[in-house]
Amino acid sequence: MPLSRDQQDEIEALRNQSVPTLRATAPGMEAHLYTAYPVLDHGFVRVVDYMGDDAAICQAARVSYGRGTKSVSNDEGLIRYLMRHWHSTPFEMCEIKLHVKLPVFVARQWIRHRTANVNEYSARYSILDREFYIPAPDALAAQSQVNNQGRGAALAGDEAARVLRWLTEDSMRAYDHYEEMISTEGQQGLARELARMNLPANVYTQWYWKTDLHNLLHFLRLRADDHAQYEIRVYAEEICRIVADWVPFAYRAFEDYRMGGATLSATALDCLRRMLKGEEVTQENSGMSKGEWREFARLLD
Amino acid sequence: MPLSRDQQDEIEALRNQSVPTLRATAPGMEAHLYTAYPVLDHGFVRVVDYMGDDAAICQAARVSYGRGTKSVSNDEGLIRYLMRHWHSTPFEMCEIKLHVKLPVFVARQWIRHRTANVNEYSARYSILDREFYIPAPDALAAQSQVNNQGRGAALAGDEAARVLRWLTEDSMRAYDHYEEMISTEGQQGLARELARMNLPANVYTQWYWKTDLHNLLHFLRLRADDHAQYEIRVYAEEICRIVADWVPFAYRAFEDYRMGGATLSATALDCLRRMLKGEEVTQENSGMSKGEWREFARLLD
Amino acid sequence: MPLSRDQQDEIEALRNQSVPTLRATAPGMEAHLYTAYPVLDHGFVRVVDYMGDDAAICQAARVSYGRGTKSVSNDEGLIRYLMRHWHSTPFEMCEIKLHVKLPVFVARQWIRHRTANVNEYSARYSILDREFYIPAPDALAAQSQVNNQGRGAALAGDEAARVLRWLTEDSMRAYDHYEEMISTEGQQGLARELARMNLPANVYTQWYWKTDLHNLLHFLRLRADDHAQYEIRVYAEEICRIVADWVPFAYRAFEDYRMGGATLSATALDCLRRMLKGEEVTQENSGMSKGEWREFARLLD
Amino acid sequence: MPLSRDQQDEIEALRNQSVPTLRATAPGMEAHLYTAYPVLDHGFVRVVDYMGDDAAICQAARVSYGRGTKSVSNDEGLIRYLMRHWHSTPFEMCEIKLHVKLPVFVARQWIRHRTANVNEYSARYSILDREFYIPAPDALAAQSQVNNQGRGAALAGDEAARVLRWLTEDSMRAYDHYEEMISTEGQQGLARELARMNLPANVYTQWYWKTDLHNLLHFLRLRADDHAQYEIRVYAEEICRIVADWVPFAYRAFEDYRMGGATLSATALDCLRRMLKGEEVTQENSGMSKGEWREFARLLD
Repeated sequence: MPLSRDQQDEIEALRNQSVPTLRATAPGMEAHLYTAYPVLDHGFVRVVDYMGDDAAICQAARVSYGRGTKSVSNDEGLIRYLMRHWHSTPFEMCEIKLHVKLPVFVARQWIRHRTANVNEYSARYSILDREFYIPAPDALAAQSQVNNQGRGAALAGDEAARVLRWLTEDSMRAYDHYEEMISTEGQQGLARELARMNLPANVYTQWYWKTDLHNLLHFLRLRADDHAQYEIRVYAEEICRIVADWVPFAYRAFEDYRMGGATLSATALDCLRRMLKGEEVTQENSGMSKGEWREFARLLD
Repeated sequence: MPLSRDQQDEIEALRNQSVPTLRATAPGMEAHLYTAYPVLDHGFVRVVDYMGDDAAICQAARVSYGRGTKSVSNDEGLIRYLMRHWHSTPFEMCEIKLHVKLPVFVARQWIRHRTANVNEYSARYSILDREFYIPAPDALAAQSQVNNQGRGAALAGDEAARVLRWLTEDSMRAYDHYEEMISTEGQQGLARELARMNLPANVYTQWYWKTDLHNLLHFLRLRADDHAQYEIRVYAEEICRIVADWVPFAYRAFEDYRMGGATLSATALDCLRRMLKGEEVTQENSGMSKGEWREFARLLD
Repeated sequence: MPLSRDQQDEIEALRNQSVPTLRATAPGMEAHLYTAYPVLDHGFVRVVDYMGDDAAICQAARVSYGRGTKSVSNDEGLIRYLMRHWHSTPFEMCEIKLHVKLPVFVARQWIRHRTANVNEYSARYSILDREFYIPAPDALAAQSQVNNQGRGAALAGDEAARVLRWLTEDSMRAYDHYEEMISTEGQQGLARELARMNLPANVYTQWYWKTDLHNLLHFLRLRADDHAQYEIRVYAEEICRIVADWVPFAYRAFEDYRMGGATLSATALDCLRRMLKGEEVTQENSGMSKGEWREFARLLD
Repeated sequence: MPLSRDQQDEIEALRNQSVPTLRATAPGMEAHLYTAYPVLDHGFVRVVDYMGDDAAICQAARVSYGRGTKSVSNDEGLIRYLMRHWHSTPFEMCEIKLHVKLPVFVARQWIRHRTANVNEYSARYSILDREFYIPAPDALAAQSQVNNQGRGAALAGDEAARVLRWLTEDSMRAYDHYEEMISTEGQQGLARELARMNLPANVYTQWYWKTDLHNLLHFLRLRADDHAQYEIRVYAEEICRIVADWVPFAYRAFEDYRMGGATLSATALDCLRRMLKGEEVTQENSGMSKGEWREFARLLD
């Protein structure tokens, strides 16, 4: 369980304190607020706060005085238009604040998205918990044979058992030593900021992470993608489910134009036009490299 | 009047739609929400949305599960500590969205603050209103004799009258021509994106502007300062009044450590230590240039 | 002429001061350095400094010790791969610094690209020159009948003449009054920071603008596009010519994947697959709105 | 040794390839270019590229056509003025690109500075080296008794020996298992992106890191400070030495106004004025908390 009884009580208490507000409120998001959705073995994602809704996107695009909603169908059409033509600023007018618990190696990928605000739990100041990510058997994947940064099938048998044993034993031993090094019983006790360096990258950390909807969707496009590492993708997928309830029009447009869409090069567009005229186009006469052609063919399949 | 009857009605309608929310809510801010506070002759500032309150700053600093408030006095102490030691990330966890109507030359200063989200009314797409900033008599200042980017006393008599007449007449004529150029009655009509170039920099524009509390305070420190141009300072001062009600602890710490504070150089600190020991320190033996010494002396006066 | 004799001499002097460096140097860029390429009637673009070249992109992508160039063909292949898969960080490792002279209404569009560093000529501190953009006859376009933010054909006859006369006369009168208001002969003289507000948006300003290659290419994609306003597009096109000589591999990949490419939605990809199988797809059975279908059909034509 | 023979040869080769350039060149920086300065036991910092010099700061501040240097003393005065009055944009006109090898726990602090460009060595794609930070005996500090995020004296005797043994043994064992898990001899081999999670935070990584001078100085102010963790401070100090040779005027101003300076609150300034008038000011009548007063007293001592 990622949460202690006390932590759950604190969250529950917040969920019971409804107050009136004049602000734009998204009912779909209120239903998610504060709830910690489990991810991986000890992690979670929970919404701590949000600003705006689908109407707020339109309101900003129109720089309007009232809610800006002329009609619901108008709003969806406008949002699709904005997404299709890469107008990013109206989407920046919505904001989300998440509390995330995640392994350090996932946090290191996540933080590359720089246009966001972050407050991480400090291992200089505080003591980390004994919580480590140990992959479930089906997530214990072999190195891909064809892709240097991909995965193959799950490991099996002795190999899987040995890997799990090492990951578990090394984590536990590292934490035992961490505790013993910082202990002040009968000794000075190593500084926390030093002791933490003994902990492996599967140890869990936590942070508050706040970003706007435009940058969030960019994050989701990259991290909910098939090519993303499984351990960050499960966080992205959980966030996708939340965003779909928060700003349903924007999320549907995102699914159509970004997640399910694809960018074609000038060369690829030219090939397409030839193919639609009935010409036989092959990699050899396409003007594309083998890698590009493979990706192109897969797209049209 | 900066607002039409219709616009006021739209705003009024929003102020009557209170809904329940689970989010952190700042009562002081709810009282300001949507109200358009007049600034200059046709401008205004109004809060369209906000995220967070004083407690949210502490909650993020502590990466806590519940509201994070241990006690109100604890919270103020923590916020003062964070401000004093330049911890910026917890303040980034609050966000504000403003609708501002302002002259173009003010907008051009404002936009230099890049860490913000902006949607401006489009003069490519839409037609600007006949609204121009004409300074009140006491804001019609002479060029400073001592400071290339400062102001002296207000102009008087014939000179003042002539300046006001030119500003008014040139604005009106420019707008007349703007209207006539884009008119399609009996002619093709010039493209809006071209016609707007005839309008002077005192024409009003509007935008939605969203930023986090840390960047907002940085903006206010520079723009509510005595050295800021009067026409942007009045906007900043109006926003200061709003922020003081939104996050009272953070705003008080800001007043003490930023607005009312000052940064002293190593040289200045050294002079201070000598002065406190009773030594007579003058510009000549201070190690400072005349300009630095003048600023230093004014600070201690 | 955008440059005075003195300014040209200053630039010439710099072009004669070659010094040795150990840094990555792009010969194609050295040939452009400092030269002010004219744009519009009084504007220009000139490169003041740059960092990196095609090899530097690869070097960063490989985090290598030496230049990182294994072979030239390898480098181009890697750059195309990075561009195709939206890897932005290696392109951020090149930087460019431009000096641009441009009308204020163009500057206001330009500045929306926030990830850049800017130093603009200060009209609070200094006096602006009597230079205004007056469109050439073929750039004096009518408002588009079909697109609220587009242009139609050039104005003609009396209408064109009247527009040109107004633009010219209003600019000159505004500048006359600007000069007379700030004059201190026999009067106090209005503060510069106020007097500038009388100048229309076609007055020229200047700035130093510095950005990285990734953000520059994003700027060029939007501003060298057919839908961009003509007056900013000519700046973007001039910069395109420079970039093509600076980082030829990156620029070619940019032309193929960005400028000449297009993003298709999931719905559009699905239509394509159906069309390639021989199915008759129309707007009605496409799942697209009329606007989307029009854009889609134009792409394949 | 942080560098292999081959890596040193690659670097040496670059240091022998001087080419002519028209760009602003800083002789003090050319002398540092490419050289890998050792930091900690396996780390280093080396300058890969730079843009601009002291004169470039002035050139941008003046938006000038030539080098912008009127006289060297003028330049230093202007730079001091800009630094004193928090004008940040001219300093943003210089840029630096570093190659840094550093332990992961240091990288995690470093990356919090978001206004920078980063390309990190990919442990998804590549295999990390067997290099771990093991503190020198005098850096093996105890937890501070008074400051939750500080250090006390160095550990001694058995305790020190035990900590060093654990850090070393746990690192080596983790790396042994890492190697065995990714091995494909007689087994499938675990995906690299998973195997890396077994490595502790003292393992070394590397990145290219590029930022502008303004943001670099902000980084140095925080990380070369006494309160920074020793392991990041030694990197910051090495960079300080490089910057002092690159932009000597800017660096001297930085030392005086930032590193050696201090920000006083309105309350503290008021106390100072009272003290200078001869009044006895104590914590009790100062209006400051005990913590603030302690910091204030230390400053004036």
